[in-house]
Amino acid sequence: MENHSTEETLDPQDWRAMRALGHRMVDDMMNYLQTIREQPAWRPLPPVVKENLKQPLPLTPQGDEKAYQDFLENVLPYPHGNIHPRYWGFVNGTGSALGMLAEMLAATVNSNVGGGDHSAVYVEQQVLAWCKEMLGYAPDASGILVSGGSMANLMGLAIARNALAEFDVRNDGVRAVPGMMTVYCSSEAHSSVQKAVELLGLGRNALRKIPVDRHHRLEVASLEKTLAEDRRAGHVPFCIIGNAGTVNTGAIDPLEALADICQREKLWFHVDGAFGALAALVPAMRTQLAGMQRGDSLAFDLHKWMYLPYEAGCLLVKNKAAHEKAFTVVPTYLAPHDRGLMAGPPWFANYGLQLSRGFRALKIWLAFKSHGIDKFRRLIYQNIRQARYLAQLVEASPELELAAPVPLNIVCFRFISSQLDEDQTNQLNRELMMELHERGIAVPTSTFLHGKYVLRVAITNHRSRREDFEVLVRESIRIGNELLQRLQ
Amino acid sequence: MENHSTEETLDPQDWRAMRALGHRMVDDMMNYLQTIREQPAWRPLPPVVKENLKQPLPLTPQGDEKAYQDFLENVLPYPHGNIHPRYWGFVNGTGSALGMLAEMLAATVNSNVGGGDHSAVYVEQQVLAWCKEMLGYAPDASGILVSGGSMANLMGLAIARNALAEFDVRNDGVRAVPGMMTVYCSSEAHSSVQKAVELLGLGRNALRKIPVDRHHRLEVASLEKTLAEDRRAGHVPFCIIGNAGTVNTGAIDPLEALADICQREKLWFHVDGAFGALAALVPAMRTQLAGMQRGDSLAFDLHKWMYLPYEAGCLLVKNKAAHEKAFTVVPTYLAPHDRGLMAGPPWFANYGLQLSRGFRALKIWLAFKSHGIDKFRRLIYQNIRQARYLAQLVEASPELELAAPVPLNIVCFRFISSQLDEDQTNQLNRELMMELHERGIAVPTSTFLHGKYVLRVAITNHRSRREDFEVLVRESIRIGNELLQRLQ
Repeated sequence: MENHSTEETLDPQDWRAMRALGHRMVDDMMNYLQTIREQPAWRPLPPVVKENLKQPLPLTPQGDEKAYQDFLENVLPYPHGNIHPRYWGFVNGTGSALGMLAEMLAATVNSNVGGGDHSAVYVEQQVLAWCKEMLGYAPDASGILVSGGSMANLMGLAIARNALAEFDVRNDGVRAVPGMMTVYCSSEAHSSVQKAVELLGLGRNALRKIPVDRHHRLEVASLEKTLAEDRRAGHVPFCIIGNAGTVNTGAIDPLEALADICQREKLWFHVDGAFGALAALVPAMRTQLAGMQRGDSLAFDLHKWMYLPYEAGCLLVKNKAAHEKAFTVVPTYLAPHDRGLMAGPPWFANYGLQLSRGFRALKIWLAFKSHGIDKFRRLIYQNIRQARYLAQLVEASPELELAAPVPLNIVCFRFISSQLDEDQTNQLNRELMMELHERGIAVPTSTFLHGKYVLRVAITNHRSRREDFEVLVRESIRIGNELLQRLQ
Repeated sequence: MENHSTEETLDPQDWRAMRALGHRMVDDMMNYLQTIREQPAWRPLPPVVKENLKQPLPLTPQGDEKAYQDFLENVLPYPHGNIHPRYWGFVNGTGSALGMLAEMLAATVNSNVGGGDHSAVYVEQQVLAWCKEMLGYAPDASGILVSGGSMANLMGLAIARNALAEFDVRNDGVRAVPGMMTVYCSSEAHSSVQKAVELLGLGRNALRKIPVDRHHRLEVASLEKTLAEDRRAGHVPFCIIGNAGTVNTGAIDPLEALADICQREKLWFHVDGAFGALAALVPAMRTQLAGMQRGDSLAFDLHKWMYLPYEAGCLLVKNKAAHEKAFTVVPTYLAPHDRGLMAGPPWFANYGLQLSRGFRALKIWLAFKSHGIDKFRRLIYQNIRQARYLAQLVEASPELELAAPVPLNIVCFRFISSQLDEDQTNQLNRELMMELHERGIAVPTSTFLHGKYVLRVAITNHRSRREDFEVLVRESIRIGNELLQRLQ
C-alpha cells in the first residue's frame, strides 16, 4: 500500500502566505474601485497584452503570486468598463464593493444549490420571496434564480409551451401539436426571445413580430389581427410576450391590454422585464408598468438594475404547478430522503435546466439586507431622472437630436448637421461612438432606429452623476464637430 | 434643477471600513477552509436558523456588518458540504482557497463576456485553447464556457439538431422534419440529457435509452438494432450520446465504437464527459477514454474534477461553423465595429444562449497557471486510486458488498446481512446513509442499481485522504450493525 503522506491537495501549503495574498487582493480591488473614476472609461488592449494572453498550457506551477501578477498586468487594466461611472453600454450593471466580497463568500461555502437541506437553499428561497413581494407576485408564486434574462426568457417560454393542456409536449415533442405553435412579441423584443423560440424547436417563423407605434410600443390592434389570422390558418397561438422596457429605447408595451388579451384568448402572458421590471420599485413608474404583475411569468435581472455582479437573473412564475410540470425529473441518485443532506425543501433542480447550481443568491441577500430596498428604489429613480436630464441636455443642443422618447433609463441621440446626408450622418455617428470609447471619455453603445445609427445610453449605473452626462454631451458635440471638419 | 449633491451611490461612504470588512472576511474564510476538517461533514439547520432565514423584505439598511454577521451565524455553519474532506455526494467539486479569491477578482472587474474588446474575452479564449489542448481537440475547434454540464449537454444537442443539412430547424422548427428526430444514449445517461431533449421540442419519446452491459456501458449491438428499426420506421436519427463517466457508477461507454457508428451513419457524436472527461489528463486512463476526442461536441465541468468553485462548465465543438450556425443572432444594438469596445473577436454571445455572461474564465485561468496542469493530473489520479482503495476496503469487509465495478472515481456499496431480505437491506442502507449525514461523519449519497439501494461515493475532492475512506468503511459497518440490532 502506498504511503499516505504522498497524498496532496490544492489547499495552500502556507496558509499564512495565502491569507496575505487575500489581504493584498482586497486592498488592490478596493483601491481599484475607489479610483475607477480616474481611469479611462475604456482602453484598448495593447498588442503585447494580447500576446501575453496567449500562453501555452501551463503544465508546471507558476504559483499564486505570479498568476496574480499576470492578472494585475494583463487583465485588470482592460475591463469591459461597466464598473466605470461613464459606462452606459448595452444594459450592464455596475457591480459593487459589497457584491465583490459576497462572491468571495459564496465561493468559499461553494454550496451546490440544486437542492438538499443546507443554508444556501433557504437563502435562495428568501431572496425569491423578496423578489415576489417587490414585484407584486403572490407568496405562493414560484420562481428561481438563473444566469440572466436570456435563460429566464427561455424558461418562461418553455413553461408556457409545456403548459398546454391538450398536448404532452415534454413527452411527444412539438410535432405532437397539429399546427405551428405561435408566439407574439413586438418588433423591439430582445434577441434572446428569438433564441428561445429557436431552441424550443418552434422555429423562428413561429415568432410573430408585431409592429410598434412611434413610442416603440407593441401595436395592440396589429396583434389582434395577426392572432385572428393565425387562428384561422390553423396555427396554435400559446404565448404573448410583453416588454417591460425594450433594449433599444426602454419602451414599455401596453401590459394591461396584453394581459387582457391573454386572459380572453387563454394564452400564456410572459413579461420580459430584464431591466425595466425593477422600475416598479419607484412609485412614480408604477402606472407605466401596470399589468406587469399579471404576467404568468416574469423575467428580470438583478445584475442589471440592482447593480449586482454577474450572474444574477430571476424568473417568477405565477402557477407553481406549471413551473414544476415543465422541468421536474428525479433520477434515482437524487431520490428524496427524510433526513440528512438529501432532505430539504423541493429541489431547485426541478424548476429549471441546471442540476448543479451556484450560490448566486448570497450576493442578492447580502445587498438587500445591507443597503435596504429603499436605497435601490432611490438609485433606480436617480438613473431615470439622469436619463431625463440627458434628454434635456440633448434637446437643448442644436448639434444633437433626440432619436426616441425616453420613458425609462435609455436615451438615444445622434449628432446632426445640415451639411450631412443620412448616410454621412450615420457614418459620422459611428465614428463618434468609437472615438468616445478610444479616448476613454465614455461608453455609450449604438443601435439603429428607423435606419438611423444612434448613440444609445442605457443608465443602470450607481456611480454615474449628472456631471458625467454633461461631459458626454459636451464631448459628443466637440468630437462631432471635429469629425465634421475632417469630412470637409 | 436638482442639486447634484443629492445624488447617491452604492459605493461605501467609508472605504476604510469596507476595506477592514474585506480583510475580516478573508481571515474568516481562510480560517473556515483551513479548519474545515474539524467540522462535521454535514449538519442540519436548527429550526431557529430556518426562522432567521425568513425575514420580511428589508426596506431600510441593516449595514454591511450586520448583514455579514447574519451570514456568519445563519449561513456559513450549514453548507452543502462539498468543501469537506469526507464529502463525496452527487458529483460536486470542492472549490479552493485560490478559487474563492478568484471569484472576488472576477466580481470586481465584473466584465460582461458576451463579447466586445476587453481582457476577459481574451482570457476565456485562452482558457478554451487550453481545454482543447488538454482534451485532444484541434486548435481550430470551437468552444464556450457555460454554467455547467446540463447547459453544455443542451447546447451540444441543439447544435447537432440545427446542423442537419436538409432542414432549417432554426427557422421552421422541429415540425419541418418529416419524422421523429431521435437521439441515442445509454439507460445510465444523465437526467440533463432528457431535460435537453424535452426542451429542444423533440419529446422524451425521441430519446432512445439503450440497455447497458454488466459494467453499465452502452450495449453497441442493441444500439445498432434500435437505430436500424428507427430508420425503417421513418424516424430521423441525428445524434448519439456517449458517456465518459456515468453519474451512477462512472462507467465509460465504448466511445470508439460509438464514434465509428456516428461516422458510418452520419450522426452527430456528443460526449457527456461531465466529470469523466478530465480523467483523460491521466495517462493510465487514456485507453478507457479512447474515442472521446472524436466527439463532434464534448461537455464537461471544471467545477467538478478541476475542483473549481461553481459555476464552470465547458462545451467544445469540433466544427466551428456548426457551432455558429446554431446560435448566431446579431440584433442592431450589437452591430460590430472596427474599434472601441464594440470591436474585438467574434462575440461569445453568438456561440450560446446567454448574451450577458459573467467572467467565469478567470478562476480557471488563475488555477491552471498557479497550480499547473500536472498538479490536477496527479490529484485526479489520486481520486481514482482512492476509489480503488475504498473498493478494496469494501471487498475486504464481509459486512459490505461492492455493488458495481469501479472504472473511475465512483464506488457504490451497501451493508449486507444474511438476516435481511432485499427490502430490509434497502431500508437499512437508506437509514445508514441518513445516519452518516446526521452524525456528521461523511456525505456519500445514494442511488439504485438493479433495484438495490446503494451508498454512492463519488470522489472529486482534493481534500480527501485515504484515512477518510477508512473512517467511512469503519463507521458504515459500526452504524450498520447498530441498525441491524435495532431491527431485531
